[in-house]
Amino acid sequence: MKNENQIVNSFQTVYRISYSDTDQMGFMHHSNYLKYYETARWELFRSIGIPYPEIENEGIILPVINASVKFIKPAYYDQEIMINTRIKSFKGARIVFEYQAINETKEIINEAQITVACVKKSTGKACFPAKRILDTLKELIDK
Amino acid sequence: MKNENQIVNSFQTVYRISYSDTDQMGFMHHSNYLKYYETARWELFRSIGIPYPEIENEGIILPVINASVKFIKPAYYDQEIMINTRIKSFKGARIVFEYQAINETKEIINEAQITVACVKKSTGKACFPAKRILDTLKELIDK
Amino acid sequence: MKNENQIVNSFQTVYRISYSDTDQMGFMHHSNYLKYYETARWELFRSIGIPYPEIENEGIILPVINASVKFIKPAYYDQEIMINTRIKSFKGARIVFEYQAINETKEIINEAQITVACVKKSTGKACFPAKRILDTLKELIDK
Amino acid sequence: MKNENQIVNSFQTVYRISYSDTDQMGFMHHSNYLKYYETARWELFRSIGIPYPEIENEGIILPVINASVKFIKPAYYDQEIMINTRIKSFKGARIVFEYQAINETKEIINEAQITVACVKKSTGKACFPAKRILDTLKELIDK
Repeated sequence: MKNENQIVNSFQTVYRISYSDTDQMGFMHHSNYLKYYETARWELFRSIGIPYPEIENEGIILPVINASVKFIKPAYYDQEIMINTRIKSFKGARIVFEYQAINETKEIINEAQITVACVKKSTGKACFPAKRILDTLKELIDK
Repeated sequence: MKNENQIVNSFQTVYRISYSDTDQMGFMHHSNYLKYYETARWELFRSIGIPYPEIENEGIILPVINASVKFIKPAYYDQEIMINTRIKSFKGARIVFEYQAINETKEIINEAQITVACVKKSTGKACFPAKRILDTLKELIDK
Repeated sequence: MKNENQIVNSFQTVYRISYSDTDQMGFMHHSNYLKYYETARWELFRSIGIPYPEIENEGIILPVINASVKFIKPAYYDQEIMINTRIKSFKGARIVFEYQAINETKEIINEAQITVACVKKSTGKACFPAKRILDTLKELIDK
Repeated sequence: MKNENQIVNSFQTVYRISYSDTDQMGFMHHSNYLKYYETARWELFRSIGIPYPEIENEGIILPVINASVKFIKPAYYDQEIMINTRIKSFKGARIVFEYQAINETKEIINEAQITVACVKKSTGKACFPAKRILDTLKELIDK
């Protein structure tokens, strides 16, 4: 069964909610989506040949500058949650990621849009990523 | 020195960034703003006579259903960050909180809007909070 | 290459260190070992046919009552860490787990012994787990 | 009312358990004690005139190399927990901290012994802290 509203051409990763992710409501604490989305975006980067540690080794960091998250249904301990990640746009020093979290019964439980900026670690100033990264990302967007 | 852009009539709390809040960028990890904002909103509730534990004891939970966060500048280990919290609106089962995080040199480093919903824990359905809470919140908004 | 000092007959799981696990030392923050060890022990339980959620559904919780952890070498972002988990002993309401964390170059970077107690959730008192669980654990220890 | 078993001559800090500290057992997740103890030891250091950020600025880090924690009673959301911290010993590059966590009804809910090592950040090797720090710590132990 394919959920009709799922992001197309997205990169998929699956995470099992751990006990320490939960809070006393019995839900995964809402702050943890940001952690899973972070892991998911660097897995997407790894999959296209740009491991994030290599970027940091070149003196660039990609901090989050904007996050908009819609919490639709709770995630529960021990559930396997599939995360769809897509690079929505890439302009100047900014990369916008689009996310969906899907539970085991194929319900979309969370949606997010997260923007990161390319920043030179030594100066804290926005910068362009290396040409190799630029080219890879452009190719991905254009597909 | 008062920052001109600070939210007026907000409730203020101060937190010191702890070591475990940081990541290897040397910044507070971005997910932690959601934790501090959560603590800040229940401190606001405590200050108006509605401690959050009492709400949960009455079988109501207030999960986050929407969060929009703008990360303007990093927060660093050991900094004291002031959080301005304001209830922006309150309609039906939804309460919208507005936040600003201010660093020690009075810069606004983060802004957010976070919506929580009143949910009956036993059913998972949206509900109205108790009249006492409704009245307190209305009074606060009308001020 | 097999490390000579590895625990024999242990259950093995592998986790990739995520960015949010790190702190500004550039290491995985030491508190996170307890989270990974927790996940590892319930994976061991799942592997022997006792999923932890089933235990909680029967009104039993297994909180940690003792943890002794030796931090030998740092774990770094993006490393795959193998965790060896073994049930060392099982007596009365207490289960003792023994752990080793092994990095990608087969070094033992962390060792721990963690004791959990069977507790009835409704009363908070120590209790014996269900006979089915007792029998499974005894069989595992006796091997 | 003074608990007879409290550590004497200890440094005291108080923390309120936040919602994100809890797990679905309804307790503070056990990993969080390590975070509060970390914050408490650097508050102790601040109180004796050695702010931890200054140590890191001199190229020294103090990672945890050993932690032994006894979880006696749960900590709950919104409780104010007092942490008693004492430097138990200081030898070579190692500093041993002793902890107690005390709840609002003066019960000791957690005890720990945590050892940190002085490590030169650039080399990863154990080192002696600056003479100023050595002298301050010796004076504190001898009291």
